[in-house]
Amino acid sequence: MSQFEKTLAAMGVSLPDAPAPAANYVPWVRAGDMLYVSGQIAREGDRLLTGKLGADMDVAAGAHAARSCAIALLAQVKAACEGDLDRLVRVVRLTGFVNSTPEFTEQPQVINGASDFLGEALGEAGKHARVAVSAPSLPFGVAVEIDGIFQIR
Amino acid sequence: MSQFEKTLAAMGVSLPDAPAPAANYVPWVRAGDMLYVSGQIAREGDRLLTGKLGADMDVAAGAHAARSCAIALLAQVKAACEGDLDRLVRVVRLTGFVNSTPEFTEQPQVINGASDFLGEALGEAGKHARVAVSAPSLPFGVAVEIDGIFQIR
Amino acid sequence: MSQFEKTLAAMGVSLPDAPAPAANYVPWVRAGDMLYVSGQIAREGDRLLTGKLGADMDVAAGAHAARSCAIALLAQVKAACEGDLDRLVRVVRLTGFVNSTPEFTEQPQVINGASDFLGEALGEAGKHARVAVSAPSLPFGVAVEIDGIFQIR
Repeated sequence: MSQFEKTLAAMGVSLPDAPAPAANYVPWVRAGDMLYVSGQIAREGDRLLTGKLGADMDVAAGAHAARSCAIALLAQVKAACEGDLDRLVRVVRLTGFVNSTPEFTEQPQVINGASDFLGEALGEAGKHARVAVSAPSLPFGVAVEIDGIFQIR
Repeated sequence: MSQFEKTLAAMGVSLPDAPAPAANYVPWVRAGDMLYVSGQIAREGDRLLTGKLGADMDVAAGAHAARSCAIALLAQVKAACEGDLDRLVRVVRLTGFVNSTPEFTEQPQVINGASDFLGEALGEAGKHARVAVSAPSLPFGVAVEIDGIFQIR
Repeated sequence: MSQFEKTLAAMGVSLPDAPAPAANYVPWVRAGDMLYVSGQIAREGDRLLTGKLGADMDVAAGAHAARSCAIALLAQVKAACEGDLDRLVRVVRLTGFVNSTPEFTEQPQVINGASDFLGEALGEAGKHARVAVSAPSLPFGVAVEIDGIFQIR
């Protein structure tokens, strides 16, 4: 088990299997040492975490949804690293989209659910540049979608 | 004619001229072997493909609009490769924005119009990481805008 | 003073101090010669530039807000270059999010506030690929958020 995964286990997190490729797009593409991971939508197991911030979901639930996206991103990184998460050098950038009403202004607090998780799980390697914005709606009505760029070895 | 363009021709697609630079931004920037192409808006010839998913445009028309963005992206890649599309190594990542109502949830089906086209036209080189989200509105009222990162030689 | 900063001074622009890291995300991450800068929100000094295009803010004010994001991006680039902005090789790509109503269609004119500023300040090095879309809302109600990818030496 990789060092990063030992930390995850201590946090009570086990990475799910990375979803298989869907049609003509794929979960990730590597170019040099940069790994581009497709947008991951909020889910726990088979259950999608749906909701709209500012309407039927509060910030704490939104942050939990963002955390689930970060877990899914790490699962994809692990798959891209052939199962060895310690090949991850650095989380480079996350772009987080929050499904919200036009009045909602706490996008950073929601996406912190992902950033805090990555910081706790990965330490310095988890500190990333970040974009946090709203979307009027997201696939399947999920509350959060986050894509990521990672540096791997 | 490049191999990729032969496939496009067999698909009945000819790449349009890439639009000229507008003001202080440009259609693409190359950094190393990575090519960053500006967001391309849905259009056919001189006609913009306007509409809002969930309101006045259905998913099939949205997917057609997304396909037009992918064609425009390839036209820019060809221009960046001095006319030789076979210098394209790989479509790395697309980010697709769908002009939609707050209730719309079929962003993936819309952006599939771009992904399926690239898969058909480019084969393995066309398989990309992807982000699909909604925007409340897009430039000139177009239905879809897609930007792309490409690896070229 | 760097050449770029001399031009900025002649334009009457002095770069603010780059905001310090916030929690588990950081203002920028460098990977090779690529610099990823976090989304910068519209502000002047301590005052956030809030508003929604198509509702309570016009295009000229939106372009001014976009310009403020570009200034903040350059401040981060300068910090990443240890104070020497002339290590900036090229602005590679900007993604601009405009806080707007669903009817607003002048995203490009708003984000031109950033693009024109970078062109004026940096010349050829300021010409970038660009994405301009709307968001239904942005952090703290700001009018514009822009993130950037830069090539540095």
